Amino acid sequence: MNSVGLKFRFTTFGESHGKAIGCIVDGVPAGLNIDEAFIQSELDRRKPGQSALTTQRKESDKVEILSGVFEGQSTGTPIAMVIFNENQKSRDYNNIKDIFRPGHADFTYWNKYGIRDYRGGGRSSARETAARVAAGAVAKLMLKEIGVEVKGGILEIDSIESKEIDFDFALKSEVKSLDKNAEAAQIEAVKSAKKSHDSVGGAVLVQAFNVPVGLGEPLYYKLDATLASNLMGINAAKAVEIGDGIDSSRKRGSSNNDGITKDGFLSNHSGGILGGISNGDVVSAKVWFKPTPSVFKEQKSLNIKGEEITYMLEGRHDPCVAIRGVVVCEAMMALTLADMALLNMSSKIDNLKRVYS
Amino acid sequence: MNSVGLKFRFTTFGESHGKAIGCIVDGVPAGLNIDEAFIQSELDRRKPGQSALTTQRKESDKVEILSGVFEGQSTGTPIAMVIFNENQKSRDYNNIKDIFRPGHADFTYWNKYGIRDYRGGGRSSARETAARVAAGAVAKLMLKEIGVEVKGGILEIDSIESKEIDFDFALKSEVKSLDKNAEAAQIEAVKSAKKSHDSVGGAVLVQAFNVPVGLGEPLYYKLDATLASNLMGINAAKAVEIGDGIDSSRKRGSSNNDGITKDGFLSNHSGGILGGISNGDVVSAKVWFKPTPSVFKEQKSLNIKGEEITYMLEGRHDPCVAIRGVVVCEAMMALTLADMALLNMSSKIDNLKRVYS
Amino acid sequence: MNSVGLKFRFTTFGESHGKAIGCIVDGVPAGLNIDEAFIQSELDRRKPGQSALTTQRKESDKVEILSGVFEGQSTGTPIAMVIFNENQKSRDYNNIKDIFRPGHADFTYWNKYGIRDYRGGGRSSARETAARVAAGAVAKLMLKEIGVEVKGGILEIDSIESKEIDFDFALKSEVKSLDKNAEAAQIEAVKSAKKSHDSVGGAVLVQAFNVPVGLGEPLYYKLDATLASNLMGINAAKAVEIGDGIDSSRKRGSSNNDGITKDGFLSNHSGGILGGISNGDVVSAKVWFKPTPSVFKEQKSLNIKGEEITYMLEGRHDPCVAIRGVVVCEAMMALTLADMALLNMSSKIDNLKRVYS
Amino acid sequence: MNSVGLKFRFTTFGESHGKAIGCIVDGVPAGLNIDEAFIQSELDRRKPGQSALTTQRKESDKVEILSGVFEGQSTGTPIAMVIFNENQKSRDYNNIKDIFRPGHADFTYWNKYGIRDYRGGGRSSARETAARVAAGAVAKLMLKEIGVEVKGGILEIDSIESKEIDFDFALKSEVKSLDKNAEAAQIEAVKSAKKSHDSVGGAVLVQAFNVPVGLGEPLYYKLDATLASNLMGINAAKAVEIGDGIDSSRKRGSSNNDGITKDGFLSNHSGGILGGISNGDVVSAKVWFKPTPSVFKEQKSLNIKGEEITYMLEGRHDPCVAIRGVVVCEAMMALTLADMALLNMSSKIDNLKRVYS
Repeated sequence: MNSVGLKFRFTTFGESHGKAIGCIVDGVPAGLNIDEAFIQSELDRRKPGQSALTTQRKESDKVEILSGVFEGQSTGTPIAMVIFNENQKSRDYNNIKDIFRPGHADFTYWNKYGIRDYRGGGRSSARETAARVAAGAVAKLMLKEIGVEVKGGILEIDSIESKEIDFDFALKSEVKSLDKNAEAAQIEAVKSAKKSHDSVGGAVLVQAFNVPVGLGEPLYYKLDATLASNLMGINAAKAVEIGDGIDSSRKRGSSNNDGITKDGFLSNHSGGILGGISNGDVVSAKVWFKPTPSVFKEQKSLNIKGEEITYMLEGRHDPCVAIRGVVVCEAMMALTLADMALLNMSSKIDNLKRVYS
Repeated sequence: MNSVGLKFRFTTFGESHGKAIGCIVDGVPAGLNIDEAFIQSELDRRKPGQSALTTQRKESDKVEILSGVFEGQSTGTPIAMVIFNENQKSRDYNNIKDIFRPGHADFTYWNKYGIRDYRGGGRSSARETAARVAAGAVAKLMLKEIGVEVKGGILEIDSIESKEIDFDFALKSEVKSLDKNAEAAQIEAVKSAKKSHDSVGGAVLVQAFNVPVGLGEPLYYKLDATLASNLMGINAAKAVEIGDGIDSSRKRGSSNNDGITKDGFLSNHSGGILGGISNGDVVSAKVWFKPTPSVFKEQKSLNIKGEEITYMLEGRHDPCVAIRGVVVCEAMMALTLADMALLNMSSKIDNLKRVYS
Repeated sequence: MNSVGLKFRFTTFGESHGKAIGCIVDGVPAGLNIDEAFIQSELDRRKPGQSALTTQRKESDKVEILSGVFEGQSTGTPIAMVIFNENQKSRDYNNIKDIFRPGHADFTYWNKYGIRDYRGGGRSSARETAARVAAGAVAKLMLKEIGVEVKGGILEIDSIESKEIDFDFALKSEVKSLDKNAEAAQIEAVKSAKKSHDSVGGAVLVQAFNVPVGLGEPLYYKLDATLASNLMGINAAKAVEIGDGIDSSRKRGSSNNDGITKDGFLSNHSGGILGGISNGDVVSAKVWFKPTPSVFKEQKSLNIKGEEITYMLEGRHDPCVAIRGVVVCEAMMALTLADMALLNMSSKIDNLKRVYS
Repeated sequence: MNSVGLKFRFTTFGESHGKAIGCIVDGVPAGLNIDEAFIQSELDRRKPGQSALTTQRKESDKVEILSGVFEGQSTGTPIAMVIFNENQKSRDYNNIKDIFRPGHADFTYWNKYGIRDYRGGGRSSARETAARVAAGAVAKLMLKEIGVEVKGGILEIDSIESKEIDFDFALKSEVKSLDKNAEAAQIEAVKSAKKSHDSVGGAVLVQAFNVPVGLGEPLYYKLDATLASNLMGINAAKAVEIGDGIDSSRKRGSSNNDGITKDGFLSNHSGGILGGISNGDVVSAKVWFKPTPSVFKEQKSLNIKGEEITYMLEGRHDPCVAIRGVVVCEAMMALTLADMALLNMSSKIDNLKRVYS
């Protein structure tokens, strides 16, 4: 199952060190301007090798559109995008080919499938998220047509919280921090982990602005439930909160309810979603990432023969995957909203009559 | 979209005060003993009116199987179950029919659909979860055949945490508490909220034991992502954590990784899932519920004409929806695992050959 | 898999002699007037016992709506409909419970599932088509809002063709014949087959008028392909033709192409579909039904122990299933078009902007 | 909607004269030997330019696997395949860019999407079927593991029927004819049509051997219904028959029923399917193709401004699309059976226990 979305739907393929990764985006309405430079710029925000705080692996991540676009516009047919892998053969994987790295998917893929492409994690590598970002960029272009904008940034690294929420600052920040006052400490935490051959976790805040009321298909394709799925499915994500999330559970109902006025809601504890449907306020979610499982310390594990080993990883890895996770969270929220926007078009019989009149 | 699951799939219907609620469970393998008494007993665990701490509304929630079972066994055809509503006409809804209750789905249903069955929340009422529990009971019966068991209990109410995890105690506890030492304080918190016409939130721990390695379909129907969706979709849920969840984000990689030995994992921070696939350890999730939005205090809101009103709710409601949420969380985890168990059957070509030899 | 449709979607349940049959119709836009009398009238067109030429089994087929309708209108939530079986226990099935009736699904259900509800064919009985007709009636109501109308009639019985196509006549005809000049011979063919304890086949013509241009989702949910699936899936159907069908294959391209003018197409060999998408002309399909497998003559078969037997059926059956098949074909075409109408709403970015402006 | 199949599922992309066409095949069990030479050989059977009787357009149709295969075996991850287009810019399309060719999808794509890639028919070109054939080849490889084989050939061209069914002969025949005695006349019919700047229709017989009993998911993913969809969805298909199809409708039940013995069925009028489920006999379908709409005669049509024109096509086209349709029919039947084989694995609780024991 490598597809996501019901109406705005994408399917990805590719392994970390295979020939290419890519996706097919299906369901894009015809007549949308497909701004290739924007898609590439989104990929550039995600690509490795940009900072001393992310992996030093270099990939240009140049995206190529193979179909579905004609004279700059979407035609309603599937948009295939491909990114050829450049350092496909750059490494020797003999040291990891027979072992299960703790915290990684090696053990489970091996047991589920009986075979595994061990090169760089194969399919389970976070490299696949480049395909999500490419597809998410198309979703963002579509959402822009109805005024919706998705923004993200780092809410926390190694327990250091961003208290101010400044999405513009996040765009410039080396760690995509939302808070210029917290950034330095967050950077220091990443550096410190890296120095001690370890890694740290973090959290991403992702929000959507100007979302129409009515998005979300109850009862089993609710906006919040689907966001939860699409965000939790990102590599290393371990928790998703909608709106105030856990904090809501610790308040009383009288203070957690968002009062309603003519000018909108008096507060937004709900994260812009009531009964699984967007209420017109800012849609807000937090995604919590575990620390990168790739640490450069001795770990206990098994090899594929079932023998116990002590194992020390080598290579280049992000000490904090949450940082590059920001743009992936944005992509997954954009996809979710794009899908919901299309699905919701038929909620009322009047819309049907309007389109077919 | 009122269906969930790909292969083991159920579809629900019904409004709080309509004629009936129910479901169709599709994809149940043939030859399964359908223990009606067990299904009813699961519904009884969820039904209201059992304690002074839950709503006093009385519903016998008697389930009737209409199809798909022959001489006590599933036949492979859809299992329809229906629960007729008893107190369908028992109340006057004039006081709420034209207003949007804060924290409820009234506002969003109205805007999405332009019409709404206001009686008791209509489709958005937690009453629908009875259908989930009935379907979940069938999933539990199927999982039992391969040794899997799902258990749940209250992890927290109003910030009072269950520190010991005792699922047997939860079965007897009035608030389904996991911790006999925390139970009294948790009960007191509910009573206190009720007395002050307010409500409290809470958290549920739900775990599955003896889960085979290999369940979960990467990359867009991962076990953790799908659990997140199915648990977040429960009424009033605002956050889902897998394994240690947010706590993992605050540790370093070297302490968060679960070492692997011949006898299993050295720890279970991951919640039994690696790369979206079950690893054979206990599958574990936490679900956080907001405080019941139905509070008996003055609130600011709008009516359907768009006029601002001050509103005071009447009626009978759970002061803490997390309590009755326990069995719903179990049902949704059982469904998820049942679906994944069926989907995973074709992961290896050897399984295909075995079935068709 | 007991669901059909992607956006306008229904799921059916029930066995011939179980407690009830029924369906859940999901995806109906809110605000549609649900005319229960119309739904019942469609079921009445299908129900048995109306003529000496169809089965004498009596069922009132009274439909009951359980959900999704409020004050006469659809609310956007699932519409559940149920028909309780009346003559559930009216017969003794000992004579067929252990044997596989030739031409029926007994053999395949037994082998696939290892268990089978043998009473009246169980799930494989044409009785299930009542649920399709109920769901199809809702589809017809929705289509009516955009001016689309679906009509059907008998095109052929036992090689006797309806040469004139008169849908109004079909509504009154005892065998739903499209041709008043062919009707007598068609009736005679049915009577003759019945007298000799045998059965005859036939064909249904089903057409949709005033269909908007643009319905059908290439390349794997084309209008013609989906019609083919939905019509071929009706019990006893063995062939589906779109437009001129096989006749087209026997013409040359120059005479088969439909020329295009300002006033529409010069001919309609295509059946109103080009490239899998409706072209605005009448959508037309033919469905061919085999003769009822239930014949009252000796047949060779096996019993469930694998022993060869000679078998003679008793009971009441339609000597020509195509007749009651007419309304089922209409239902399946209505469903297909309803689904396609909803799906097509997002084909152009302009429609998206119009709905969300 | 450019995906087909539920569990063995493929998604295609690409336009006739875009950069590339291709597909992602998802759900292939791990551990299958992926014989690239076989996949290429299937594509070679379909590719144009092989005979004076098919189009003279040259395409090498070289397939490249981008993912999902490791050391020659499937890994359970999506298999992406791409075929780069070679004569992408080889022609001037000014003469057709503004007109709607009769019998083609130009008119409907334009109306549905408001934009169209006119080069060679864009997405609606039969060129897309190369992607189906590549995916179908993978399905054939999987089916081979359980002994199933799919074969096809020409049953009729321009009303000239193949009376003997010889699949081996079809493999060698220039027109893929099933009957060495009919081949010459069939060839002559194609030549004659070509000479008079016209085209002819035809029919394909496609059969599957050694199919296990039990494939097909009643009631809305029946084997026959799904075959009907997947075959009717092939470009230019206008009718699908299962087994004896229309001939069955013209027989009496007593002669149409297939008697059952210990050694199998006494006849196979049903085409190996009862109640939508395979019965163990040969699965058989006929697919009827219209004559190629591309004829080199004057035709009446419209241009995109809505003006009436008289139009004369130029270029190179198959005078009989059924011929190259043979391998596409095989691919679609292989896909259907592969999907059904995976879906059916969970039909019995015993299979579940066997896989998880």
